[in-house]
Amino acid sequence: MSFTGRPDAAMTLSRLSLDFQSLADAYANGAITPVSLIDEIYRRLAARAGDHVWTHVVGHDAARAAAQRIERARRAGASLPLYGIPFGVKDNIDAAGLPTTAGCPAFGYIAERSAPLVARLEAAGAILIGKQNMDHFATGLVGIRSLTGHCRNAFDERYIPGGSSSGSAVAVATGQAAFSIGSDTGGSGRVPAALNNVVGLKPTPGAIETEGMLYCNRSFDVPPVFALTVGDAGRVFDVLTKQDAQSATISSGSAHADARTAFRFGIPREDELRFFGDRDAEAHYRAVVGMLEDLGGEAIGVDYAPFAEAGGLVFGSALVAERWITYGEFAATHRDDVHPAVYDAIVAARKYDAADAFRALYRQHALRGRALRVFDDIDVLALPTAGTIYRCDEVERDPVSLNANMGYYTYFANPLGLAAISVPAGFTARNLPFGLSLVGPASSEKALLSLAARVERQVAGPLGATGLRNETLR
Amino acid sequence: MSFTGRPDAAMTLSRLSLDFQSLADAYANGAITPVSLIDEIYRRLAARAGDHVWTHVVGHDAARAAAQRIERARRAGASLPLYGIPFGVKDNIDAAGLPTTAGCPAFGYIAERSAPLVARLEAAGAILIGKQNMDHFATGLVGIRSLTGHCRNAFDERYIPGGSSSGSAVAVATGQAAFSIGSDTGGSGRVPAALNNVVGLKPTPGAIETEGMLYCNRSFDVPPVFALTVGDAGRVFDVLTKQDAQSATISSGSAHADARTAFRFGIPREDELRFFGDRDAEAHYRAVVGMLEDLGGEAIGVDYAPFAEAGGLVFGSALVAERWITYGEFAATHRDDVHPAVYDAIVAARKYDAADAFRALYRQHALRGRALRVFDDIDVLALPTAGTIYRCDEVERDPVSLNANMGYYTYFANPLGLAAISVPAGFTARNLPFGLSLVGPASSEKALLSLAARVERQVAGPLGATGLRNETLR
Repeated sequence: MSFTGRPDAAMTLSRLSLDFQSLADAYANGAITPVSLIDEIYRRLAARAGDHVWTHVVGHDAARAAAQRIERARRAGASLPLYGIPFGVKDNIDAAGLPTTAGCPAFGYIAERSAPLVARLEAAGAILIGKQNMDHFATGLVGIRSLTGHCRNAFDERYIPGGSSSGSAVAVATGQAAFSIGSDTGGSGRVPAALNNVVGLKPTPGAIETEGMLYCNRSFDVPPVFALTVGDAGRVFDVLTKQDAQSATISSGSAHADARTAFRFGIPREDELRFFGDRDAEAHYRAVVGMLEDLGGEAIGVDYAPFAEAGGLVFGSALVAERWITYGEFAATHRDDVHPAVYDAIVAARKYDAADAFRALYRQHALRGRALRVFDDIDVLALPTAGTIYRCDEVERDPVSLNANMGYYTYFANPLGLAAISVPAGFTARNLPFGLSLVGPASSEKALLSLAARVERQVAGPLGATGLRNETLR
Repeated sequence: MSFTGRPDAAMTLSRLSLDFQSLADAYANGAITPVSLIDEIYRRLAARAGDHVWTHVVGHDAARAAAQRIERARRAGASLPLYGIPFGVKDNIDAAGLPTTAGCPAFGYIAERSAPLVARLEAAGAILIGKQNMDHFATGLVGIRSLTGHCRNAFDERYIPGGSSSGSAVAVATGQAAFSIGSDTGGSGRVPAALNNVVGLKPTPGAIETEGMLYCNRSFDVPPVFALTVGDAGRVFDVLTKQDAQSATISSGSAHADARTAFRFGIPREDELRFFGDRDAEAHYRAVVGMLEDLGGEAIGVDYAPFAEAGGLVFGSALVAERWITYGEFAATHRDDVHPAVYDAIVAARKYDAADAFRALYRQHALRGRALRVFDDIDVLALPTAGTIYRCDEVERDPVSLNANMGYYTYFANPLGLAAISVPAGFTARNLPFGLSLVGPASSEKALLSLAARVERQVAGPLGATGLRNETLR
């Protein structure tokens, strides 16, 4: 929300939206300082204790000290594009002095140094709050594959939060962090964004440094950005990709410029759409397609077969052996410490030999070529981020096939080297959030952010699960 | 040689050099036609019957018919940048109607259609003569790994021709083809070029379509061009890479322009140089380094360790499983039909699992990064193409380690995604040819061709083993 004066600080802080514009306004008019914002964040964390969103939190004093450091840095004239913005990282990304567990405490270790992406965000003025919960070994799209407690959907506790970056999405949706960095191999940066009504920007594999992150598929893992607004995700992306964040190309303002630009968006053929019996989601997707047409988009039917096949490679081919490299030896020797569905997925790697690995890579390469040709005819694919959503108890009864259903529209993007963004696109008849995925070719992040900002403006929905509106869209 | 009038055709034809300029001059002044040149080529083949350079030859009548077709096409106004130029392809590249054996008749099949690269050369006016001998399954750098008879060094029959594209190099050196297309995984397009005093241009992996070629490492195999001159190799490369061959950027003429341009060339540290006891080769390499300095080059010592390690991956890691994909099932079920050293190299793939494959790829990727940084300080690496040469009987007694020695300066280029050219650089004290390899980063072919043309002009040696000189260098 915007601040126009100096209302009572305590009352205002509890209602403060963490979108970057609200924070910038509050810093500008003196309603908050980095230290007072950190204090408010820790009040929120305390109020939600036991929600399993965070696995490890930076000590309050240490976070205050970080806030004081950036206050001093600004006074000294430092350029801090993420000044005083609180963030979290998924618990498979190293932050110095905190455990990295990948959702499995027995596997964990204390990180000696922070991943370069964490250091870069901190150098830009962002303040780390802690590490966020996740599906065990980042192997899942449901967010409840945990032996130590999982978080829940920010809109309805009966429902899954989505995964594997569950805590990263829920933290943003519930106002516990202004943005989060997760990991995305098969959809982990998009599915939980969609299920919790936040933005999930999954850049092109290779666009962001992955050192200090535990890999699932080192060949194409990429750290995604969760944020309340498209512009905020773009700002973080700019910082992470070394561009000058002061001149961020994407903001709700810059999106106005091309608000009437025509575009072509691909949608799967009718017989390739999958909603797994969820008529609410199906009806909502069709309405979203209509909205894209209203925005100047031309819907073009595309053959989804190469995308579906490429998605199948992630767990249905020797590509799964990359997961073995990180987690295999541990799983093989600590079976009781590993979630059973995750154990099965990882030990499947053992059946593949080196020739199988190269055969899978050749197939991946061939499908990449086919997918690229699809983008000759369209600017983006426009897909449901997830074809449905399940209750936690449904997934507990059928943990493998329901999990796979959640990835039908996301698995393919990284093996094919594509970029994607999941943008909130309203609520279904059950009052659960619906995410629209826009998928583009490699290095299309700016175009995706621009189109996503148009969608965001058209939808004009609430920010995450905070009940607050994006004032900049008014 | 150049034609200035119309001397006695029969006498002249037998002495005609097949370098492109000599052919163009002979066509221009009417001394030859495509059909009469084809007749001359078949006379040369007949005179050398039993030299094991060719495995299969196009029927004389069919080659004549092809020559007549391109004569008609030119009269009809077709643009034919390789008008009437006879060529051959290694016997692991498909040519419609001919067997493809990869040096193993029991493995062979009749190709239904030509590899796209063959079709492209023919469409440019080149005339296919046949398929050329090679090390069994393109697995060797010696040229004598054969169960059906191998060809011999064009300068001294006691010596190996080099491999695996042995026939491709010897055919050009001995005036049986104007150019050849081989395959190069670990040096097969450079080592035999060096050992037979011809040019071997090995482009960047991916620069030339490889469909219709039997793969050793599909990830980085590349078809090289063997030719008598640097300009000729560049002309063929232009045709194969869809550039306008009419405006070929490289010729002996264009090289004059930058004949005094300074450049930086990397050479291994003293303790990393390997000549395997061959003092002739060592002395010659040092003289060649001096020649490069005379040409305006600055020698810069570089750390050869990442290159040596990357070279070791080709046979010393799970990368060898790519070879298994093409040849493994056959080798496992037809042991008696497979050369023993080749059999051992291929079945080694069985010990690697899928995780090993990805580990090898990660290492390859890391070394690629290190190698690229070396090229921040140098324009090219300048290496012996081979550190020595062996007699056939020596290799027969020690077929594995002597073969590996031949690849010390070549194995790394393709796994690291680099381009290279081997250019004739005179003769050692034993009167055997010495090849200089210039190695550059990806897509550096034009720069390599330009520098190689300067070397060629400086060396001003004979063309292959024909005893003829390059008239254009006079």
